Amino acid sequence: SSKIKIFALNSNKPLAEKIAAAVGVPLGKTSVDRFSDGEIRINIEESIRGDEIFIIQSTSAPVNDNLMELLIMIDALRRASAATINVVIPYYGYARQDRKARSREPITAKLVADMVEKAGADRAIMLDLHAAQIQGFFDIPVDHLMGAPLLADYFLTQGLDKDAVVVSPDHGGVTRARKLAEFLKAPIAIIDKRRPRANVAEIMNIIGSVDGKRCILIDDMIDTAGTITLAAQALMDAGAIEVYASATHPVLSGPAIERIEKSPIKQLVVTDSIQLPEEKQIDKLVQVSVGPLIGDAIKRIHENKPVSPLFTTRFR
Amino acid sequence: SSKIKIFALNSNKPLAEKIAAAVGVPLGKTSVDRFSDGEIRINIEESIRGDEIFIIQSTSAPVNDNLMELLIMIDALRRASAATINVVIPYYGYARQDRKARSREPITAKLVADMVEKAGADRAIMLDLHAAQIQGFFDIPVDHLMGAPLLADYFLTQGLDKDAVVVSPDHGGVTRARKLAEFLKAPIAIIDKRRPRANVAEIMNIIGSVDGKRCILIDDMIDTAGTITLAAQALMDAGAIEVYASATHPVLSGPAIERIEKSPIKQLVVTDSIQLPEEKQIDKLVQVSVGPLIGDAIKRIHENKPVSPLFTTRFR
Ligand SMILES: Nc1ncnc2c1ncn2[C@@H]1O[C@H](COP(=O)(O)O)[C@@H](O)[C@H]1O
Ligand SMILES: Nc1ncnc2c1ncn2[C@@H]1O[C@H](COP(=O)(O)O)[C@@H](O)[C@H]1O
Repeated sequence: SSKIKIFALNSNKPLAEKIAAAVGVPLGKTSVDRFSDGEIRINIEESIRGDEIFIIQSTSAPVNDNLMELLIMIDALRRASAATINVVIPYYGYARQDRKARSREPITAKLVADMVEKAGADRAIMLDLHAAQIQGFFDIPVDHLMGAPLLADYFLTQGLDKDAVVVSPDHGGVTRARKLAEFLKAPIAIIDKRRPRANVAEIMNIIGSVDGKRCILIDDMIDTAGTITLAAQALMDAGAIEVYASATHPVLSGPAIERIEKSPIKQLVVTDSIQLPEEKQIDKLVQVSVGPLIGDAIKRIHENKPVSPLFTTRFR
Repeated sequence: SSKIKIFALNSNKPLAEKIAAAVGVPLGKTSVDRFSDGEIRINIEESIRGDEIFIIQSTSAPVNDNLMELLIMIDALRRASAATINVVIPYYGYARQDRKARSREPITAKLVADMVEKAGADRAIMLDLHAAQIQGFFDIPVDHLMGAPLLADYFLTQGLDKDAVVVSPDHGGVTRARKLAEFLKAPIAIIDKRRPRANVAEIMNIIGSVDGKRCILIDDMIDTAGTITLAAQALMDAGAIEVYASATHPVLSGPAIERIEKSPIKQLVVTDSIQLPEEKQIDKLVQVSVGPLIGDAIKRIHENKPVSPLFTTRFR
């Protein structure tokens, strides 16, 4: 059978190292840098003819650069006669542009899917897509992995499931909260935002009981952290004893870090789907690695076995 | 017949204004900015249903951002029922990655062509592609315009054709030099670079007579300006009275400006295919506008007339 080769681009090399370690192969030799004018230069420094390739690249910020690195790498590998090209995109950028919410909007999440396919990818491995429907934007097979078991594992290991209630920060996230609550055997609560009139501050109603409880807020991504920090304050005001926030993807753009530091959030538990610069690795932050989860998926794909989204041993 | 609408993205708004003025229409209303995490947000602020659209965007630096703006705009326009989507790419980035010069290299110029088409463009208008073969990377019609007549027009207007010799900085550029020389009714010369042994400085031989002449170096683009400034010095050493440098595309990355300032180049005559930040607009620089040339092409496309690459009246 063909050889597995794993290549890391620039978005998240530490995660790529962990994935390669979980699979038990060294990372493929490549250099991905820039020409003087900023154009991407890729050198693949070993033969890959006939190999089964896995490219690890999150399309996190700088999203356009990371996406182009991925597309150019696919192009180079295809022209160099790779047997199959699997793209592992732990964080899929532009996922929120997945429908026309208003007239004349692009659907960039579909455009990106088209490009990845047109460039020559044979299969995609993703983690907690903002909307599961994005799988349907691809015609190639998509394996969709779940971060929730890993996050649950952390809370269980720390004994934080005791007296816990899992809280969805909005109506759209109830299914996600339900899932984490199942793993933790905890009840759920929902934050119900209402704006009584235009230009009047939103009121946060809490549906469910949080008084005297440890609240675990869960979302798929935390971007500017506006919603989650307001929700944390509302939960404390409603009598919660402490608030944890959790999400698969730590986007953490703009004022996010400052807001989280100032908020009553005790710990922010996320995965390493996005590599964070040092200044964002604050004390409150816990990053659980998806390296073993993705490594397991790669081994199963290689062996033609079904990929289990519930990787974590505890929940198998 | 359908209405012409011209939209400018962020790479080169001053040129887009000139093009719109030449066509005699206002620029379409749109805003192209960024979400907090750096993802591109496009709002098209007027109906474009059934319209004939022209998007003006050079894929100059930051190349990946400018390319993604273009692709997302095409996607939005297509979904908003534009009749036809014409993309005007005065400077086509990644054009030097147009063949596998070494093993396992990507052909990014083809990848970009595939993407522009896949996103939904119906036609492309380009200016002095690094290699004319790139036209063949597209399956949609490509109009390929020439900057040389405009550059020639400048030299003629300034009376700089007298005692002039047009110089190609390398063997690959002789055809281009030949063309400019025809317009100027001037002879040509060629710089013949040879490296006698590895790790020994290149020797610049000049084929043709430049002694006592005004030399006009011509290239398609000037990037780091290494070649062109060394060539200018070699020409002065060979007895040239003065040296002008000319090119369609002022890429001017890295040390380019410093090298040009320090070189014997008297004037650098380029087009406005790339918008230059203020610090690169040095005294030696002359930017001739391709706005009227592209405007004329747009009007001819609209009227179903053949596009004349030799737009400049003097050479028609
Ligand atoms: N990068 C982004 N940052 C913030 N908002 C975005 C981003 N991309 C898309 N959106 C907006 O987010 C909304 C969709 O988010 P959601 O309702 O959570 O799926 C749409 O209105 C989009 O215009
Ligand atoms: N942005 C760039 N800057 C400098 N060199 C490049 C760039 N893109 C491609 N190249 C290299 O330029 C060579 C092709 O240039 P040329 O021979 O002028 O067509 C190839 O070896 C490419 O690897």
